[in-house]
Amino acid sequence: MQTITKVALDAMGGDNAPGEIVKGAVNAVSSRSDIKVFLVGQEDVVKEELKKYQYPDGQIEVIHAPEIIEMAEPPVQAIRKKKQSSLVVGMNMVKQKEADAFVSAGSSGAILVGGQTIVGRIKGVKRPPLAPIIPTETGISLLIDCGANVDARPEHLLQFAKMGSIYMENVVGVKNPRVAIVNIGAEEEKGNALVKETFPLLRDCKDINFVGSIEAREIPHGGADVIVCEAFVGNVILKLYEGLSSTLVGVIKRGLMSTLKSKMGALLALPALKKTLKAFDASEYGGAPLLGLNGLVVKTHGSSKAQEVTNSIYQCVTFREQKINEIIQEKIIDSDEKEE
Amino acid sequence: MQTITKVALDAMGGDNAPGEIVKGAVNAVSSRSDIKVFLVGQEDVVKEELKKYQYPDGQIEVIHAPEIIEMAEPPVQAIRKKKQSSLVVGMNMVKQKEADAFVSAGSSGAILVGGQTIVGRIKGVKRPPLAPIIPTETGISLLIDCGANVDARPEHLLQFAKMGSIYMENVVGVKNPRVAIVNIGAEEEKGNALVKETFPLLRDCKDINFVGSIEAREIPHGGADVIVCEAFVGNVILKLYEGLSSTLVGVIKRGLMSTLKSKMGALLALPALKKTLKAFDASEYGGAPLLGLNGLVVKTHGSSKAQEVTNSIYQCVTFREQKINEIIQEKIIDSDEKEE
Repeated sequence: MQTITKVALDAMGGDNAPGEIVKGAVNAVSSRSDIKVFLVGQEDVVKEELKKYQYPDGQIEVIHAPEIIEMAEPPVQAIRKKKQSSLVVGMNMVKQKEADAFVSAGSSGAILVGGQTIVGRIKGVKRPPLAPIIPTETGISLLIDCGANVDARPEHLLQFAKMGSIYMENVVGVKNPRVAIVNIGAEEEKGNALVKETFPLLRDCKDINFVGSIEAREIPHGGADVIVCEAFVGNVILKLYEGLSSTLVGVIKRGLMSTLKSKMGALLALPALKKTLKAFDASEYGGAPLLGLNGLVVKTHGSSKAQEVTNSIYQCVTFREQKINEIIQEKIIDSDEKEE
Repeated sequence: MQTITKVALDAMGGDNAPGEIVKGAVNAVSSRSDIKVFLVGQEDVVKEELKKYQYPDGQIEVIHAPEIIEMAEPPVQAIRKKKQSSLVVGMNMVKQKEADAFVSAGSSGAILVGGQTIVGRIKGVKRPPLAPIIPTETGISLLIDCGANVDARPEHLLQFAKMGSIYMENVVGVKNPRVAIVNIGAEEEKGNALVKETFPLLRDCKDINFVGSIEAREIPHGGADVIVCEAFVGNVILKLYEGLSSTLVGVIKRGLMSTLKSKMGALLALPALKKTLKAFDASEYGGAPLLGLNGLVVKTHGSSKAQEVTNSIYQCVTFREQKINEIIQEKIIDSDEKEE
C-alpha cells in the first residue's frame, strides 16, 4: 500500500496567494498520487480558485480558516490572537498529526514563532534553525541559520551543523556534504568569540564532514554545501544575496538597454542569458525548512509562484520518506548523551 | 604658500607592486604640485621602476626598506620582527610626523595591527575602524567597520558612526550623510543584543543623521550613506559583495558566450555593458581609511592598479585639508565629556 504524505498548505500567505498557491497544489497532486494537500484558508476564496482546475478527487481538501496574518503584524501577538488564521490552523494540523508538514509563503516572523510554539521542538533540539537554499556558481548550498535565534551559543551552532548536514544529504541528495562555518579568515585562530568556541566542537564532531572556516567571498563560488552561522549573520548573507543579485541584474539590464547597438545585442543574447541566470535561482529546490520540529514547517519565498509551491510540497514528501526527523532525533540525543 | 601633503606609499605591497604602485605615484605628482610621495621599499627595485617615467623633481623620494611582509605572515609577528619592512618604515614616518598618511595595498592584517601599534589612536578613540567604500545602485556607501575589532561593544559602534559620518561628509562630499545600523528588520525592537543596545545611542546622538536600521537587502540599493556594523558582519558584507559580484558577472559572461547567437549579441552589447559595470566599482574613490589614528592609514585593494593608487593619494590630501582628524578629536572628546 502506498503511503500518503499529507501537506497543510497556507493558501492565504504570500504575494501571489491564493492564485499561485492553489495552482501549485493542483500541479503537485496531478503529478503524484502519494500526496494529499490540505488547502488552509478562506473556504469560499479557495474553492473559487479550485474551480479553475481539474485534479484527482480526494487529493485536495479545503480547510476553512477565516483569519489572515498580515506581513506587518507583530508575530507573537498574531499567533496568540488569530487562532483561526491559516497559519495557526495549518500548524495545529501538524501538531495533531493530521498533516506531516506545513508550507507557507506568509510572514517569516509568524512562521518562526508558530513553528516553535505550536508545532514544538524535537526533544533535545535546543533551537530550530531556518535553512534556506542559496544558489552558487557550482550548484546550491544550505545556509543555516537564517531564523530568529539571535545571540546563539556554540552548542546551538553544532546542532545546526548536524541538522543541516542531515537535510542536505538526505533531502537534497548531496553525498557527505562539506560543512563550513562562516568566518573572517580561513585560519582556526581567526574569528569572534562565538566562532572560536564553535570551531573545535565542529572539528571534533564525528557526524559531519567539517571542512573548516569559509569566508563570505567563497560562498557564491560554492565553497561548502552546509554553511553554518548564527542567525544575524545568516540573515545578512541571505538578504544581501537577494539585494545584490537584483541590483546587479538591474545594472546589467540598464547597460544592455543604454545604446542602440547594445539593444540589438541584447535581443540576440537575452534567451541564452535568461537560461544561465535561471540556473542561479534556488527556488526550484523548494522553500526553507525550519528544522528540528515535531513535523516539518517550510517557509517559501513571499513572491513564490506555483512552481516553487509544487517543489516545496515534493520536498515535504522526501523529508518524510527519508525519515529526517527520526535521524535528527537519533543524532541529537546521541550527542547529548555523549556530552554527559 | 602652498601646503604640501606628504604621503608615504608602500611600494612593495599588493599584487601589482612595485609597477602599478610607482605608476600611481608618478601620475599623482604629475597632476598636482601639492603632493609629495615617499616611495617606501627596496631602493634599487623602486628606482629601476622610476626610471621609466618623467615626473616633477623633488615630489617623489625613495625611502629604503629592504624587508617585505608577505600576505600569509601572522600580522603581529610580522610587525614586531620586520622593522625594516616597507609597512613598518612607512608607518613610522607617519608616527614621526614625517608623513601625513600611509597608503598600502599589502596585508590587511599587518596594516590593521601596524595602524594601532605604530601610528596609534587619537586620544578618546577606543578602536580604529576600517571603512571601505562599497558601490550601490545609486552611488556609494561607507561600510564601517570591516577591520579587526571583533566582539565590539555599543560605544565602539557609536564612535564608528560618528567617524564614518565625518569622513563621508568631508572627504567623499555627501552632505548630511544618512547613518544606518545593519539589522535583521526595520523595527527598533529587532536585532541581537549588540544592535538593540547600540540603537538608542545612535538615535540620541546629535552629531549624526541617524535614519534607523538597514536590512542587508537594502544596502546595494543605496539605503544609507554610512552603514554601521561590527567588524565580523562588516567583513561578511564586504567579502560577499566581492564574491557575489564576480560570480554573477561570471554567470552572465557564460550566458553571453553560450550560443552563437548570444555571442553575436555580446559583441554588440559589451562596450555599453562594461561601462555600466564600471560604474558599479568603488575603486575610483580610493582605498579604505583606517580611521581614528594619529595620522591617516589607507588600505587599498590587493589588486590595486595605478588609478586606485593615485586616487588614494588624492584621498590623503582631502583628508588632511579637511582636517578630519581634528574634527574626529573634537567630536570624540566632546561626547566623552558628556558621558561622564
